[in-house]
Formats: sequence, structure tokens, C-alpha cells
Amino acid sequence: MRFPVYPKYFVRGGFILILFNDRLIEREEAAVDIEDRGYQFGDGVYEVIRIYNGRWFLFEEHMERLERSLNEIRLTLPYDIDQFNSYLHELLKKAPVSDGIIYLQVTRGKALRSHAFPAETNSVVTAYTRETPRPLSDLHAGIKAHLTNDIRWLRCDIKSLNLLGNVLAKQEALENQCGEAIFHRGDTVTEGSSSNVFIKKDDTWYTHPATNLILNGITRQFLFQLMASLKMPVKEEAFKISDLLNADEVIVTSTTQEVMPVISVDGEPIGTGSVGEWTKKLQQAFEDKIQQLAEVK
Amino acid sequence: MRFPVYPKYFVRGGFILILFNDRLIEREEAAVDIEDRGYQFGDGVYEVIRIYNGRWFLFEEHMERLERSLNEIRLTLPYDIDQFNSYLHELLKKAPVSDGIIYLQVTRGKALRSHAFPAETNSVVTAYTRETPRPLSDLHAGIKAHLTNDIRWLRCDIKSLNLLGNVLAKQEALENQCGEAIFHRGDTVTEGSSSNVFIKKDDTWYTHPATNLILNGITRQFLFQLMASLKMPVKEEAFKISDLLNADEVIVTSTTQEVMPVISVDGEPIGTGSVGEWTKKLQQAFEDKIQQLAEVK
Repeated sequence: MRFPVYPKYFVRGGFILILFNDRLIEREEAAVDIEDRGYQFGDGVYEVIRIYNGRWFLFEEHMERLERSLNEIRLTLPYDIDQFNSYLHELLKKAPVSDGIIYLQVTRGKALRSHAFPAETNSVVTAYTRETPRPLSDLHAGIKAHLTNDIRWLRCDIKSLNLLGNVLAKQEALENQCGEAIFHRGDTVTEGSSSNVFIKKDDTWYTHPATNLILNGITRQFLFQLMASLKMPVKEEAFKISDLLNADEVIVTSTTQEVMPVISVDGEPIGTGSVGEWTKKLQQAFEDKIQQLAEVK
Repeated sequence: MRFPVYPKYFVRGGFILILFNDRLIEREEAAVDIEDRGYQFGDGVYEVIRIYNGRWFLFEEHMERLERSLNEIRLTLPYDIDQFNSYLHELLKKAPVSDGIIYLQVTRGKALRSHAFPAETNSVVTAYTRETPRPLSDLHAGIKAHLTNDIRWLRCDIKSLNLLGNVLAKQEALENQCGEAIFHRGDTVTEGSSSNVFIKKDDTWYTHPATNLILNGITRQFLFQLMASLKMPVKEEAFKISDLLNADEVIVTSTTQEVMPVISVDGEPIGTGSVGEWTKKLQQAFEDKIQQLAEVK
């Protein structure tokens, strides 16, 4: 496969080339059919992969999770995963970003509208890069969080396009002057509206186990490695709202939020109400990894 | 507003004109942006309205429910509801169907991808007609149903585009040689994957109350009227799986499935294993209403 070469492919803060199935096309041409099942049923899955200094961060991990999500909803790519990998690399080359993301999604494609799977599936892949600055001031100062009832479906482990519950929660958080919504089912804290939640209590990190109730975040899993290297014990154990409010430190983690300190929950300060020591160490370890990435030849 | 007039606007079994916001456009031109929030978040709501003999069936009821769904997710139409009504009527005139449907959906439109609502919303409306024959042989013989765990979110009362749970359940039903999936939460029967469920026991119909756990079907509500006119008592009361299996009669109801008899659940015959008497009376009353519609000048 050969991509057309565009003389001016990069728009600062935006993007001009889109991966659309097996083609790189211009942004304005990237349109999907009104009967794409992604549009009528949210019938698809997605990933957001971080780019630091123009380089992939945890690429394989994201692609493995994508394959898992695809399997769970029995959706197949229009080509094999290696081919997809090479298209994505070509995309980043032709539409480069410095600190940014690649957003990619796969839907079950166009079909006469009917709930059941179509007899013949024509999956649709869309992907694009976007310059996305790191949230440095929030990482430094921490954010406020808002508790909200987790009303989502019971397959939150699938990174699907059915995100209305997450959307409504995030919006509610913003309207409460908070940067993230933290979900609870009954008394149990599950995760954030677009993040995982860790609390530190008695010299141990706690986070909800990777069951059907949370998305098993790539950053979440990466932090387990950093915590091990820092000799910080971590337990995948469900915890209560009261544990959250009484924690020494709280962080939410995601591909774009990284290791984000939470300094208050619904107005209640966490610990001292400022960024905790373990959080700072974790942030430093994370920073070192990004730095190493930049140094890779 | 004036729509362009096409000399040949009707394709049997298909459709050639699409309502796209405030324009009627040709099918091939109907495309949405890859960053439409309907495509990336399932951030939108929809309706399916029945057309019999070229005439609207329960139009106002569907439009009222649409307004409710829009309100619940705080989404606004790009124009007022009366304007929308007149566009839909124009669509049916220009792309007529005999026995068919109008599918319509509203999404929060194109925006830079971010969970929270965009600062400025540009809602996208798409709607089309489609010839859809009545499922006459199934209405006559009844269908088989399959029980499945209701894992959907807790706002099933909103007719949203987040339909992956329904999609997977319907697919599971078909693979079990059944026409519909019936959901249960724990021991309680909620509704079908694209229908409401009624059971008849001891000379009374029972159906799940219109809470957050079910969609308050327009056909469901219409049947309450028919049941009243037939002096069939009906109770909006949750019932158990065992009540379902031991019912005299079971029906699933929806805009396209009408009054659909269920003659077995997971291989267990319901009642005599054939279409029950109350079901037949209800079907006849429904048929009479359709007939009356045809006679309206």
C-alpha cells in the first residue's frame, strides 16, 4: 500500500489527514454513512494512544486492549492487526504531532438498520492524530473531583462507543466546578468518568480490581510497574466512598490525564488538600519514562 | 423553506431522500462527520415511527417521547419541534412509503472530541423513510424468545443511541433460534431487546412499570387503551422469570413488532404453546385501529 503524499499535511493543533479504513484522506473528505452502526447503535470500540515528543507511548498495550474489545463485541478489523499497526505508523508519519494523541475507532459499519449483526460486516476504521498539550498546570496543582452514581452498563471493561453515561457524568462534574467525576456503585468507588481512581492509605495504593465494572486502563497497568519500582505496595481491591474521602492521597489516571492528583472530592479536602508525596514520586517516575522515550534512538 | 423536487424519489424497499437537518438531500450525499458526537459517544436519541397505508401512526406520541429523551440528555433540536414536524411531513410526502417507518435521530453534532458537552452545540438531525412490511406470519404464528441478563445502563427510559447491550442481546437471541431476547435483572423481567413484555395471568395483563429500567414504549402505552376498551385489566407491576414461564400468554410489543405473541421462552412453551385468545383479541383491536387509520380522509 502507498499513501498519497501531501506537501502540507500538518495543521498546528488540528489535523489534516485521516486514516479511513485503508486510505489516508483529507480531513474534509472524512465522512461516514448515516447508517454506519457506529452512528445508530454506538456499535464499535476505540482507543486513544499518547504521543510524546512525536513518539508512541505504550502503543502495543493499547493495540492489545483494542483486540480484546473487538473480540468481546465480536467485531473484526477490515484487515489484520499488523496491517492496522503499519497504517497507524504511516498516519503518524504523514500527520505528525509532538505531544498529542492518536484517536482510533472501529465500528460494525454500514448496514440496513436492525439490532442484530448484519449478515456481512463492513467494519469502518477511522483514526487521526491531534496535538494535545499535557495538562501541566493541573498535574502540578491537582484537580477537584465530584462523586456521582455509576449508572453505566455492566461491561465497562469494553472500551466501547456507548459513552453517554460517561458524557453526562463528566458534564455534571464540570458544572460542579470539578475536573473529573468519580463513580460509585452503591457504596463502592469504581472509576472516573474517563479515568481510573487510586487512593493511598496506610502506605498502600488501592484501586478497583479489573472486573466488568471498570475499564482496565493502560495507564493504570503502567502505574503498577512504576509503583513496583518505587516499592509502593498496591492492592487491586474495591474501596468505599468513606475510604476515598479519608484517603491520604487520591489520583485519577488516564492516557491524557497521566497521574492526576485529586485534592478535593465534593469540596472535602483529601489529606492536606494539596498534592501528596507519593503522588509526586509517581509523577516523577512517570516523567522519567517520558524522558527515556525521548532519548530512544 | 422549500425542498427541491425530484422526479423519481421513491425506491421500492429503500429510500432515496434523507432529511439532513433542514434539507432533503439524496441518499448518497447523506454523510456525517467522523467527529459527530453520535459517532464517537453515541451522544444522541432517536425514534422509529410507523407508517400504515402511507399515513402516520401515533406520530404525536413519538414526537413527545423524543422531546422527553432530548430533555433528559439536555440536547436541543436545531429548530423548534413544529418545524421538525413539518420537515418530517415533507419527507414522507417526497419519499413516501406504504407500510413503512420513519427513522429519525438527533445527535449532539460535530465537536472536538471531549466527553463534556461542547461550548456550542450543532445538533445533527437525520431521518429517512423505509418500506417495512408488517411481520404478518410471525404475528400469526408467534415467535420464540430467549432470556438474557439485563446488563444495560440504568437510564433505559431514554431512547438513546447507546444500544450495544440491546444489539448483543438480540444477536444472542437469533443465535438461539429465537426472534427476541427478554431481559431480566436478577429475577425480575424488565423488557425485550427492542420491545416491551406483557404477560397474561389470571385474567390480567402485567407489564413492568415505566421506571428507569425500561423504555416506555409508544405501542405499550397504546395497548393500555386497547386493553381498556376490551375490558382486559392491566397492571404495571414487575413480575418474575417464573411468572413469565408460567404465564397463560406472553406478548412483546413495539412499533414494528406490534402485538407479537411469544409461544415459548428458551424452549419452554408458554400456555398451550400457541397464540392465546386474549392475544388474538388484542391483535384484532390493533388491526381495527390500523383499518380506521386507512379510512381517515
